[in-house]
Amino acid sequence: MDDVATRLAEIVGEANLLTGDGVGEDYAHDEALTVEPVRPRYVAKPATADEVAALLTAATEHAVPVTARGSGSGLSGAARPRPDGLLISFERMNKVLEIDTDNHVAVVQPGATLSEVDAQTAAAGLSYTVYPGELSASVGGNVGTNAGGMRAVKYGVTRNNVLGLQAVLPTGEVIRTGGKTTKTSTGYDLTQLIIGSEGTLALATEITLKLHPRLPHGATVLAPFGDLDQVMTAVPKIVASGLEPHILEYIDNLTMAAIVYRESLELGIPDEVRDATQAYLVVALENRDGDRLHADVEQLGERLVELGATDVYVLEGASARRLIEAREKAFWTAKEAGADDVIDVVIPRSEMPGFLTRVREMATAAESGAIGCGHAGDGNVHLAIFQKDAEKRYRLLYDIFADAMEHGGAISGEHGVGVAKRDHFVQLEDPAKIELMRRIKKSFDPAGILNPGVLFDEGVTSA
Amino acid sequence: MDDVATRLAEIVGEANLLTGDGVGEDYAHDEALTVEPVRPRYVAKPATADEVAALLTAATEHAVPVTARGSGSGLSGAARPRPDGLLISFERMNKVLEIDTDNHVAVVQPGATLSEVDAQTAAAGLSYTVYPGELSASVGGNVGTNAGGMRAVKYGVTRNNVLGLQAVLPTGEVIRTGGKTTKTSTGYDLTQLIIGSEGTLALATEITLKLHPRLPHGATVLAPFGDLDQVMTAVPKIVASGLEPHILEYIDNLTMAAIVYRESLELGIPDEVRDATQAYLVVALENRDGDRLHADVEQLGERLVELGATDVYVLEGASARRLIEAREKAFWTAKEAGADDVIDVVIPRSEMPGFLTRVREMATAAESGAIGCGHAGDGNVHLAIFQKDAEKRYRLLYDIFADAMEHGGAISGEHGVGVAKRDHFVQLEDPAKIELMRRIKKSFDPAGILNPGVLFDEGVTSA
Repeated sequence: MDDVATRLAEIVGEANLLTGDGVGEDYAHDEALTVEPVRPRYVAKPATADEVAALLTAATEHAVPVTARGSGSGLSGAARPRPDGLLISFERMNKVLEIDTDNHVAVVQPGATLSEVDAQTAAAGLSYTVYPGELSASVGGNVGTNAGGMRAVKYGVTRNNVLGLQAVLPTGEVIRTGGKTTKTSTGYDLTQLIIGSEGTLALATEITLKLHPRLPHGATVLAPFGDLDQVMTAVPKIVASGLEPHILEYIDNLTMAAIVYRESLELGIPDEVRDATQAYLVVALENRDGDRLHADVEQLGERLVELGATDVYVLEGASARRLIEAREKAFWTAKEAGADDVIDVVIPRSEMPGFLTRVREMATAAESGAIGCGHAGDGNVHLAIFQKDAEKRYRLLYDIFADAMEHGGAISGEHGVGVAKRDHFVQLEDPAKIELMRRIKKSFDPAGILNPGVLFDEGVTSA
Repeated sequence: MDDVATRLAEIVGEANLLTGDGVGEDYAHDEALTVEPVRPRYVAKPATADEVAALLTAATEHAVPVTARGSGSGLSGAARPRPDGLLISFERMNKVLEIDTDNHVAVVQPGATLSEVDAQTAAAGLSYTVYPGELSASVGGNVGTNAGGMRAVKYGVTRNNVLGLQAVLPTGEVIRTGGKTTKTSTGYDLTQLIIGSEGTLALATEITLKLHPRLPHGATVLAPFGDLDQVMTAVPKIVASGLEPHILEYIDNLTMAAIVYRESLELGIPDEVRDATQAYLVVALENRDGDRLHADVEQLGERLVELGATDVYVLEGASARRLIEAREKAFWTAKEAGADDVIDVVIPRSEMPGFLTRVREMATAAESGAIGCGHAGDGNVHLAIFQKDAEKRYRLLYDIFADAMEHGGAISGEHGVGVAKRDHFVQLEDPAKIELMRRIKKSFDPAGILNPGVLFDEGVTSA
């Protein structure tokens, strides 16, 4: 062991430090399709915030870059470590510390998985409403990327559902931000600044989550449309209806075919309807009252037909759940289908029809494929990109991102920038904002040890 | 005119620059009860973001401190200018630029008042749901303090309802953050960092607001309780009920007496009920469907009686509106009653019973009065403090704030820190966080021109 390893082992214990060949392949990557795995020199598995603080202090002294890792299910390479770096894995800090039913909050460690949080909140009749599809994801990782998911149309994304943090600054101080209160106007909102910072500002070691009552009644409506434009035009009307769907997704016909096939779904859609369909809307409603739910579903069905749906299928129980689960696995479906990248542009929802038309044109011109599905209610378009040539793909993504930004959107709605889209981000974003973000980064991390190369290229600047 | 005045007049036009005796008294203060008015040397009224940028560039070059002002209805002195300073008044930048019904957003200038936004969104069947009581308040001021108000229990505070900004950095760059999208994971969330920064980081020149459908049916329920503890114990149960009140306020008996008297309210409460009441809950429900509303009101009434309410009064139409308006004016009632300060501590809602008991004890021990009302659903306790002696009052507030922080709360839920509570903030907050905030401040404002002395003491550091 080198000096650094000795120091790190003193902090977390020898059993919780991996080096050299002891570092498993899994630690070398997340799920980003375009980011090459890199084995870090050290993997440390701390058990407490104090250990995390000691690790960061040691890393600062030795100028070792540090990457944080939850479950490794991210899609932007923000958890891909550096070859000379320390990977801090939160796998041992994985507990749900408290479910507070009076204040409707849960306090969890960053390594807690969404499925664990879901199980424990369910037992209390409550729900943590951020469901980014992959339930093995960790809450800490979700904080890093500001994860979203299908229910964001009603409940918002991670930043709307995290009330407070305990976090370790790269300088080794342990701070607490926010807490069990739903509001505060007492200085800068450090909670919100750390959320979505992809491990570049501070490492969350405890997270206070906002919970909602778990509503007992739900139904899912599937509506095929002959025309993708009609789907997109329908979306703002459904949002405006006051029916408050908690899921409002579109799935284009190719993506639906792929997920139906992969998951052996039986949706009960006649062949002639399916063949005339260009895209589907999936709308889920929930209610604390069964009668109200049924009335709402009826109203929704009528509204969808008025808006051009060729038919309306109400799915309940297992078939609804299976469709939603299949949609959640769209990433895996795309990956198995040979997609070369998956992106998640966000645009104002009214811009979706024009945007998707232009994406098709850009993809065709670039001899590439771009198919997808997305959180339509949020304007969050998930596209599987088929183009083997890295340079052509880079250019196509550049054009797609630039188009989205011109129309009021952003590169990512919930996956983050990471290293996968860093160059696009730095090239396309206003240089004044990039410079401001660099200065903010420096105000947290003067030595530049936290996740250098993520978001913007910023190396370790002092030894 | 001095050189600086000449330069400023070139930017905004002579008619829009006030100096010397031309500066009216109104520009010298906001509504904070304990902050002495100070007339600024210059008042500039820009018409565009470019003019604001030119003003900030000039201020940086001449080391002139800059304070921004909306309607001057703030309660923390954050809009109180410096004697050697420039006050930028947004009174000419007061337009609602756009109501976008497809995306459910409004784009407004910072000087637009809440009443103007309310009128224009109402015409579109939509609502901007932040109602901090004072409808003459400007949206820009609300962004500065992260204003809240009664509907925050359902809809959140300003930071939950602002999607994007155009903002001018003290270095003179004009940036755009966020936009008409409800989510983004593309770099640090500058929108959230600027919101609540009380004019110390950047000046918003355009604000994109999230709108909600305006629900047509509403009712307000007034429930007297014999015991303040019972009120506080009832609050989490009402929140957990799933009835989703958009207003959930408590009003103690002294405060109720004062607002009933001031506003000549007729609540229809018999004398014997009133005399046995220690505090009231005010709960408002809304629905897009009248029948559902009535069913919910009935359920709410039953629940309140179970929780200890001695009676339940359903107010509709004008009497409901008058009670809510009277509650909104509680600040003015307290001011007229001779209150020496008004504070708005926030704590986890389950901590309210113990907190209010301790506040009464602390006030009694300090030979002071502390009565109030508050956004019970949010744990946001508004207290009118009666104690003429400034030092005794400082010490009482110190004890109250320290107690709230020990119990997971913060100094302010929605009024902000400003200059009024700056010393308490700097004394009570974790020094590591204060230092981090100072560094963040510097990353935006290296010359320290924006609102020095607000939040923490930070003078103009370069000439």
